[in-house]
Amino acid sequence: MRDDRTITHLCLVSRALGAEAIVMEEVEKELRDTMSDVCRSWGGEFEILEEPSWKKVVMAAKKEGRAVVHLTMYGIPLQDRLNKMRSLDRLLVVVGGPKVPGEIYGLADFNIAITNQPHSEVAALAILLHELQEGKELKRKFRESRIKIIPQNSGKKVELAH
Amino acid sequence: MRDDRTITHLCLVSRALGAEAIVMEEVEKELRDTMSDVCRSWGGEFEILEEPSWKKVVMAAKKEGRAVVHLTMYGIPLQDRLNKMRSLDRLLVVVGGPKVPGEIYGLADFNIAITNQPHSEVAALAILLHELQEGKELKRKFRESRIKIIPQNSGKKVELAH
Repeated sequence: MRDDRTITHLCLVSRALGAEAIVMEEVEKELRDTMSDVCRSWGGEFEILEEPSWKKVVMAAKKEGRAVVHLTMYGIPLQDRLNKMRSLDRLLVVVGGPKVPGEIYGLADFNIAITNQPHSEVAALAILLHELQEGKELKRKFRESRIKIIPQNSGKKVELAH
Repeated sequence: MRDDRTITHLCLVSRALGAEAIVMEEVEKELRDTMSDVCRSWGGEFEILEEPSWKKVVMAAKKEGRAVVHLTMYGIPLQDRLNKMRSLDRLLVVVGGPKVPGEIYGLADFNIAITNQPHSEVAALAILLHELQEGKELKRKFRESRIKIIPQNSGKKVELAH
């Protein structure tokens, strides 16, 4: 089982960098509460879905026309597949780590490596989402947020909705 | 105290994406062992340094001509400072989270936000290092590695040095 902090970070990064939803084998109540709080405060729509069978998720995604991108250090370098992936409309990104069985390599449309070095699924997901959207995700606005940060050269400035 | 998994990931991401070293307030023996193993197996040079005073690290960096980049969701959007930062030779990146005192905002040359949304210091560091190096870090070769991955469309292929 991956640790809670990493799972929370995968959710937060997915939301912040523009994913519409995340699907997990199991969603702990605490995580669901955390993400509800984040969405209520910071705005936007982001769904946490639970599905014990990873394969069902992958097959359903394929059926609805999503390309399946599996992040793995054993895959093809990101930079060699970016053009092809950017032309795709809808994706399912699989971030597995040790839990994902070998079968995913055959089912994925792309097995992609963000370097062939060991590091972090959170970092790999972040760079993938960033590159797929060519940085546009950094400018994303989140609707109906209660908290808004006003960027500062130094210090913190926060605007609260009334 | 940040959790061990996040600290390990900060170290791994720093190494994989081309940082020369990481400095921490305290380095646990387990982490040092993990990173030694990684460097021995996967090659390259990467240092873990311990320095209980974050301020000493920042002041020393400034003295040797490094620009200090503090990652914070309250800062100026990355995309608005990238050109300026890319022209700098040497940097110290400060990834603090809740532990870093307010003083760092004044000492940093750049307070930079990778989105003004809550997510993950690991992801923020990854996108910063990726953008500063314009993706060249993804092609980095690590010297004297014992393990080398041969990228595959599907499956895993590993080459072991004799």
